[in-house]
Amino acid sequence: MMIKQLAVIGVGLIGGSLALALKKAGQVGEVIGYSRSADARQEALSLGIIDKAADNIADAVKNADMVFVAVPMGAMQAVFAELTPHLKAGAIVTDGGSAKQQVIDAAKATLGEHLANFVPGHPIAGTEKSGPSAAFAELYEAHRVVLTPTAETNTDSVQTVQQMWQQTGAEVFVMDVLQHDIVLAATSHLPHVLAFNLVGMLAERDDCDEVLRYAAGGFRDFSRIASSDAVMWRDICLGNRDAILELLRQYRSGLDKIEAAILEDNGDYLIDIFGRAKKARDSRFAEPGLTDNSEV
Amino acid sequence: MMIKQLAVIGVGLIGGSLALALKKAGQVGEVIGYSRSADARQEALSLGIIDKAADNIADAVKNADMVFVAVPMGAMQAVFAELTPHLKAGAIVTDGGSAKQQVIDAAKATLGEHLANFVPGHPIAGTEKSGPSAAFAELYEAHRVVLTPTAETNTDSVQTVQQMWQQTGAEVFVMDVLQHDIVLAATSHLPHVLAFNLVGMLAERDDCDEVLRYAAGGFRDFSRIASSDAVMWRDICLGNRDAILELLRQYRSGLDKIEAAILEDNGDYLIDIFGRAKKARDSRFAEPGLTDNSEV
Repeated sequence: MMIKQLAVIGVGLIGGSLALALKKAGQVGEVIGYSRSADARQEALSLGIIDKAADNIADAVKNADMVFVAVPMGAMQAVFAELTPHLKAGAIVTDGGSAKQQVIDAAKATLGEHLANFVPGHPIAGTEKSGPSAAFAELYEAHRVVLTPTAETNTDSVQTVQQMWQQTGAEVFVMDVLQHDIVLAATSHLPHVLAFNLVGMLAERDDCDEVLRYAAGGFRDFSRIASSDAVMWRDICLGNRDAILELLRQYRSGLDKIEAAILEDNGDYLIDIFGRAKKARDSRFAEPGLTDNSEV
Repeated sequence: MMIKQLAVIGVGLIGGSLALALKKAGQVGEVIGYSRSADARQEALSLGIIDKAADNIADAVKNADMVFVAVPMGAMQAVFAELTPHLKAGAIVTDGGSAKQQVIDAAKATLGEHLANFVPGHPIAGTEKSGPSAAFAELYEAHRVVLTPTAETNTDSVQTVQQMWQQTGAEVFVMDVLQHDIVLAATSHLPHVLAFNLVGMLAERDDCDEVLRYAAGGFRDFSRIASSDAVMWRDICLGNRDAILELLRQYRSGLDKIEAAILEDNGDYLIDIFGRAKKARDSRFAEPGLTDNSEV
């Protein structure tokens, strides 16, 4: 048994799935769960995600060997502040926040002597759904989890958190925090902003229903991430603002060039940028289209 | 037998799939195919998509009752000009172009007395793949096909083309050409530009491979359309330029507001736009996430 008692603060998709995965692997003795919503706590209990529902954060963490904080980024610091006085000596705290510098800042401001046992983490997994009912034990299988320890982080604690995630079937990477925040802004945060902006723009049209009626599979896939939780994504945008703003500037500069090419009837530029995009994506994902254009 | 002889100009995903679907339905006597690439013609023949490969457009269309032109938009007018002198009296010509005003202009410039039997069409179906090997008989099942006849179009010809598409399992709609071009710019053309621009931007980074390694399912789905054929999409961008430019302007104005909200720490604005986007998408597609945020 790897973890005697696990406390999960925020028993939604991310927190609930970790609990289920560790239970399935037989690597956790007892799971105590807390969510701000009493309904969510009861739901997590009745779904067997947690063994006990705590009425407050103090009760949730007081006997825990490992505390996993899986709340929206904007709530991290308040949760850290509330749990710190009640931690056991040597208890490890880790989190699931999507932007790491902000969480590290929040931890430094609140965890005090427990900071050395705080391991910043980010499981790169999820669906557009949220809440306890969205959790499932296999969420992390063959997915990546990134840990971004700082100079202050105890290496034994990093190793323990790494082993915990490996028990869920995830592949664990240790990465520099700045590198993490830029990579995630590029591959996740910016795409969410782009999809939210498109669907939000269409939603403002009087003929939105009519327009979406003709949307095909490409639109459905492109816009899936616009079904994600608004609070979570507000917090990520504000929590990783520097990286997102920088990438947004680059993105807009690219759109400017495409707009100019369309205006100037510059087909060569469009072929070039579209072709390079196609090549990059085909080389990364194993579902290449035919590269030659065999139509007339 | 609905169509005695069908000529397909451009035996790729779109043209090939129509041929296969009509054969499967037993609604076509003989299919003659032409593609500019001799390899593609041979491939279509050996895959059973066409019964005969023609060496030139004249031979392909001379005995055809129905001619389906499924070439990139930029090649439409030249193909129309080449086939017109060889059409049988009463032969119907239809197309699969993604932007209709440009195709109608090309038809008006070239088809002469055959213009009344030209039915502008757009099957809203496809994958990111292309070429004869990508074609399959079920592509159009439960998909939408839009016809945009003009005041000059013979209504019997519209009806025949409508019936042809219905035989593939598609649902056929007749729509005003301007409305079509705007709807498609919003739900297909603009999303393709957005996805191409994101992946193209990442492809320029020295650490592109490293970055894409951490891309999760959301990015994979969002960027799938960036694997589409570059020539086809250059032609669509130039062929539907007014509608695309107008929507691009709206889109950039939306991005400006999101950027300002992130800069000004205006979480309420982000919640509002993200929430409206989520609501619009969930109401259209039957895979809603939980609407309440049940994390702490």
